[in-house]
Amino acid sequence: MPPRRVVILEAAARLIARRGVRGLRMEELAAEAGVSSGLLYYHFTDRSTLLRRTLEFINERAGAYTDDRTPTEAPPRERLERKLMLELQDDPVVVENSAAWGELRASALFEPELRETLRRSTAEWNAEIAALIDLAGAGKGSPAGRDSLASAARLTALVEGLSQRWLSRSIELGEAQNLLRDAIAVELGGSA
Amino acid sequence: MPPRRVVILEAAARLIARRGVRGLRMEELAAEAGVSSGLLYYHFTDRSTLLRRTLEFINERAGAYTDDRTPTEAPPRERLERKLMLELQDDPVVVENSAAWGELRASALFEPELRETLRRSTAEWNAEIAALIDLAGAGKGSPAGRDSLASAARLTALVEGLSQRWLSRSIELGEAQNLLRDAIAVELGGSA
Repeated sequence: MPPRRVVILEAAARLIARRGVRGLRMEELAAEAGVSSGLLYYHFTDRSTLLRRTLEFINERAGAYTDDRTPTEAPPRERLERKLMLELQDDPVVVENSAAWGELRASALFEPELRETLRRSTAEWNAEIAALIDLAGAGKGSPAGRDSLASAARLTALVEGLSQRWLSRSIELGEAQNLLRDAIAVELGGSA
Repeated sequence: MPPRRVVILEAAARLIARRGVRGLRMEELAAEAGVSSGLLYYHFTDRSTLLRRTLEFINERAGAYTDDRTPTEAPPRERLERKLMLELQDDPVVVENSAAWGELRASALFEPELRETLRRSTAEWNAEIAALIDLAGAGKGSPAGRDSLASAARLTALVEGLSQRWLSRSIELGEAQNLLRDAIAVELGGSA
């Protein structure tokens, strides 16, 4: 059984994905996690801290599920594509993670204490994708003179935009996947 | 003075941008708009109808402010760039519109009755951008074999992603603008 702290973070991600940040009450979370309110506050002090830790947890979990399913011996370009494409999958953990991430992103407009953690998590994600772009040897001498960090920022922002469109049912999953696959090809050249 | 219906929709967009959809109460909206609750329900029947009409209002307003500020005699490529770039401006109406749009997008995960209106508004926006891409004569014979509607969908999804990152303070406005400008160049070829 995972440590209580992780059980609480998993329950928080689940509740945020299901009903949003704005409806999240500490007492309800304690019930969902099967712990006492006392233990919840012992681990996370207050609601704001809990939300920031949940954001980090979601970010780490996304890093883990995309890494776990990407063979490390594959060429960098393939690892890059898999890592980005894995964010658009009809898999319960991916859906929950993306829904919670999008909701925390939207909530940060109204809850300023989330912004710094969100900014840092976003920068980490961009840096990770940029490193793969560099490894893939792309981004050099391209017509627009673009650098790998800018390409990474565009691709991850596009993942967020497509993910929100898919989860809000404005586009089908297959269409979102095709758009992202082609965006990678457009950014890095060649076919995806 | 604009018709009462418009006054109500403006007040709804303002409140959603300021505090989110989830905190929006009909009584509070009536007070913000300076009308009676009776008049509010007379015009919009219920909260769900009000939210859908607000979504359409926001979409039309975005169409209007981007059209108004884009000279119709300019070349299509320039009109396309201006129309997309105008969504990332430090202008009170643009900020309010983008914040409300992003919040309605995020809320649609939890309020399914918003989805159809959102899907239609997104499709209209994509079609409008695709028409400009076609007029600009781009999107033909490109290396990835991409079509104008796919390019438009990627560019508008990127606008949404960048806009949410800017409004949640993960990136500076200037960086968001540079990323979008380069994305247009990457999609359509040539320099922006």
